[in-house]
Amino acid sequence: MFKLVMIRHGQSQWNLENRFSGWADVDLSEQGMAEALEAGRLLKQEGYAFDVAHTSVLKRAVRTLWGVLDALDQMWLPVYTDWRLNERHYGALTGLNKAETAAKYGEAQVKIWRRSYDVPPPPMKRADNPALKDPRYAKLDPSLIPDTECLKDTVARVLPYWHDVLAPAIRAGERVLVSAHGNSMRALIKYLDDISDEAIVELNVPNGVPLVYEFDAALKPLRHYYLGDPAEIAAKMAAVANQGKAKS
Amino acid sequence: MFKLVMIRHGQSQWNLENRFSGWADVDLSEQGMAEALEAGRLLKQEGYAFDVAHTSVLKRAVRTLWGVLDALDQMWLPVYTDWRLNERHYGALTGLNKAETAAKYGEAQVKIWRRSYDVPPPPMKRADNPALKDPRYAKLDPSLIPDTECLKDTVARVLPYWHDVLAPAIRAGERVLVSAHGNSMRALIKYLDDISDEAIVELNVPNGVPLVYEFDAALKPLRHYYLGDPAEIAAKMAAVANQGKAKS
Repeated sequence: MFKLVMIRHGQSQWNLENRFSGWADVDLSEQGMAEALEAGRLLKQEGYAFDVAHTSVLKRAVRTLWGVLDALDQMWLPVYTDWRLNERHYGALTGLNKAETAAKYGEAQVKIWRRSYDVPPPPMKRADNPALKDPRYAKLDPSLIPDTECLKDTVARVLPYWHDVLAPAIRAGERVLVSAHGNSMRALIKYLDDISDEAIVELNVPNGVPLVYEFDAALKPLRHYYLGDPAEIAAKMAAVANQGKAKS
Repeated sequence: MFKLVMIRHGQSQWNLENRFSGWADVDLSEQGMAEALEAGRLLKQEGYAFDVAHTSVLKRAVRTLWGVLDALDQMWLPVYTDWRLNERHYGALTGLNKAETAAKYGEAQVKIWRRSYDVPPPPMKRADNPALKDPRYAKLDPSLIPDTECLKDTVARVLPYWHDVLAPAIRAGERVLVSAHGNSMRALIKYLDDISDEAIVELNVPNGVPLVYEFDAALKPLRHYYLGDPAEIAAKMAAVANQGKAKS
């Protein structure tokens, strides 16, 4: 049986402040760091070990991976970092408070921007896009650097990493760990489980909880499950869903 | 001009306790973690940035690298981990206190075991060698896993990594950072600066201080220097040299 373990980074400083992060390189909060270590302990307790790890180039995902590897006593794993695993680019919403944005534009509009499959948030001005000057993207063709993304755009740039890197490794029997983001994971999950453009709107990924996919030999998913306490996970997923509500 | 920056891990728990570490997977002390972050800050202040990082598979080197990358704001760098950068294997001395060993066998004998080019410490019993059951070495041919090493042995297994991995990257213009160990660095330094078997005995590498090598186009060293306060570095090097003395 083939497996993939994915984890959304632990709580970031901007998760805590309920701000849109996207490609902004926000660090983990103290709680987020604790979640990463706890996820690693949980994986170790359940007997997981890995051959290779992949992460986005954003530090909240890297630091989550470091915490997991530390708790697993697998700090020696090779770690591949790639922009294709980055969070969805939030365009001009980057840095804004989600509840304030909902109060200003309405919850319905914010849910569209947060979760619709093919409506991107308003773009950043190209000249203001910090990724164009960021050394971590220096080797990329600038045309690949987005000013905003809807989930469909994120799917389009995550899937090559699945097909070219992750799937071949899993097929070769490697035990693969991926540290990523709410929307890069939703993009991959949509593809893996063939979720419709409508249904994906309601799918939320909790922070800092290992998600296990089991595949058949053709890498079709047989089942998936989160590790940990189901009630706690459900509460975390509901919290993610509620981030786009205007404060009452 | 071509450059390589190397760093010996910060103080480990067993550096603090003055015990032979070798391949034992000892973690950093609190001071060691602080040294790693300080080394990163120093590199950043001096304008250093890197394209790729390499480390041994031992956690004191990995955690030092993580600290450096964190302080450099380069957590997104690709990180390659390889056993060839490991500390010299200390054989049956692994875990023993250096001063106690000097009191028992004499300082002269301990200096030979610590620093001679071609006299290895007494070997571990093969059946007791934990590396044979350690998942990080599972893909290695067991014949590559030593039961003890003299520096000559360490040179023999470090140099392939230099020739096959580090030198081609440096020649291709990549800015390479290596996190390693006292003796894997002495092995590489001996080769780079063509130091005699006799002279290498007196060469000590301080913990947690970035060492910069500048090369010509043929990768012959033009000069090398440590970053940081010279008096502090000299004190650190003397401390390393004195570890093998019996306590007075």
